[in-house]
Amino acid sequence: MRSSAAEPVRVVLHPRYPRGVEEALRAVDGIELVEPSDDDGVVEALGDAPVLVTFVWDDRFLTPALRWIQSVSVGVEQYPIEALRERGVALTSARGVNAPQVAEHVFALLLALTRAVGISMREAERRIWRPRMGEELEGRVMAVLGLGTIGEEVARRAQLWGMEVVGTKARPKGYRGHAVRVFPPEGTVEACRLADVVVAVLPGGDSTRHLVGREAFDALGRGWFVNVGRGSTVDTSALLDALDGGELRGAGLDVFEDEPLPADSPLWSHPRVVLTPHIAGLSPLYGPRLTRIFTANLEAFRRGRGWTNRVV
Amino acid sequence: MRSSAAEPVRVVLHPRYPRGVEEALRAVDGIELVEPSDDDGVVEALGDAPVLVTFVWDDRFLTPALRWIQSVSVGVEQYPIEALRERGVALTSARGVNAPQVAEHVFALLLALTRAVGISMREAERRIWRPRMGEELEGRVMAVLGLGTIGEEVARRAQLWGMEVVGTKARPKGYRGHAVRVFPPEGTVEACRLADVVVAVLPGGDSTRHLVGREAFDALGRGWFVNVGRGSTVDTSALLDALDGGELRGAGLDVFEDEPLPADSPLWSHPRVVLTPHIAGLSPLYGPRLTRIFTANLEAFRRGRGWTNRVV
Repeated sequence: MRSSAAEPVRVVLHPRYPRGVEEALRAVDGIELVEPSDDDGVVEALGDAPVLVTFVWDDRFLTPALRWIQSVSVGVEQYPIEALRERGVALTSARGVNAPQVAEHVFALLLALTRAVGISMREAERRIWRPRMGEELEGRVMAVLGLGTIGEEVARRAQLWGMEVVGTKARPKGYRGHAVRVFPPEGTVEACRLADVVVAVLPGGDSTRHLVGREAFDALGRGWFVNVGRGSTVDTSALLDALDGGELRGAGLDVFEDEPLPADSPLWSHPRVVLTPHIAGLSPLYGPRLTRIFTANLEAFRRGRGWTNRVV
Repeated sequence: MRSSAAEPVRVVLHPRYPRGVEEALRAVDGIELVEPSDDDGVVEALGDAPVLVTFVWDDRFLTPALRWIQSVSVGVEQYPIEALRERGVALTSARGVNAPQVAEHVFALLLALTRAVGISMREAERRIWRPRMGEELEGRVMAVLGLGTIGEEVARRAQLWGMEVVGTKARPKGYRGHAVRVFPPEGTVEACRLADVVVAVLPGGDSTRHLVGREAFDALGRGWFVNVGRGSTVDTSALLDALDGGELRGAGLDVFEDEPLPADSPLWSHPRVVLTPHIAGLSPLYGPRLTRIFTANLEAFRRGRGWTNRVV
């Protein structure tokens, strides 16, 4: 006789997810993976399946059968938190799946600015050989805006390479991380004033909208700025003014206020901008890491306790 | 009465040197800095000055008055070592002045490959938004070809970021550095076989010519290659074959067999190549670091012992 803990759990995978997630989930024991091809199919499958793995949300997904959502994204702004709470539906995030690749991406963008790789690539496309003096990061100060799991990984690597790190955090009380000084979000400008390099790893939403604006760029002065969080956190027109009329030495951008970046954006061709098309989080190890979280939470789902990254 | 140790020493600065060296040397106490505008002026000044600070060599510089050459370069292939030894002329190199900036440049080139910054910049010039999956360095193996002062700094940073390092060294006996396994130059192919990333930091000269050739690229296989040493150490046609017909995932190049890179080179526009125009060693801290070596050696010159980086 099989124990009930071994009964396969029906898990619905929304058709939109990062590459590698499907393969990794298929290898999980003890689940029956349902893979609809569109939103309607997801709604139908959730008629009797209790688990949804998803990146996007539609209110029709909140069926009576739904008991647990494993988000494929780290951010959870898209979910109706209150409604889930009222209905007793668990929500777990993918926090941690992005830290190594995003931290490496931050330095890819930053070093492309400080070592003149970005401008050299623009000139290589025109076969121009023009040596330029690069700079050194060692000994400089980095401000990490948003010292969460990813921000700490950025801070850790910066510190290992001889930089000093300060930063901001929504709830700085009791902070124990790699930054030597931490400010609440209201201290963003003060953190920028201490820095040679500002790295934004902020989530989206109303509370962070244009948090990095004119005052922050003025405070940073003759330094570099990198954004791998959300485009909405930066006032793009203030950024362009800092690049063109101000002292900002360069901007490394993976995210933008409008994505894909509109064809008429001056950021495309700006000599002091290095940009990538929202790829900081992409990695072949995304799926395997998400699946480790999912597998731990599958056990928690069966036992009713021991959740990882539980939001609701 | 002034002691003889306090007599100003006449020091000739060759007109070709990296930016920042002149300003830094001018601030050194106890020397009279002579700054000719061409090679003839250097020869004339060395009629009675005993010290030459230089990047380039001309046999006419070997005057009877010359007692000490402080090289502005790390490599010393350009000097007539035997002739200097016979004439009792001291030669000191600039070893150490390049380590931080070249190490950061290595990672700038490497991360531009692994995080798709290079190809994204080529596409940005054409306003193309095309997300690509990047890779992670953490957990991978790097082979550093040439574990000298710079190579060790590359190895140290790689290790701090969770990579395992192997490498080659001209004289591996008694090695105590950051690599877990070290081979002599004859083990280059074996080191490449162990690696996901090969970083060449080799000096030029006959003994290293085309050391990185077809066999090395075959051994590396599906990995990345970075060269910040000398262009002559790489067989460019084997490199191109590995990029086009082989498995090589990308090449980050700061040095080339012909410099400036000829206009008809396919490397300029290759989608899997990231390149910079021989700038890895450039840094505003080059002058100050060289001056620290020079100042220590000025004291050694006066006392006849205690040299730093002495080659002859």
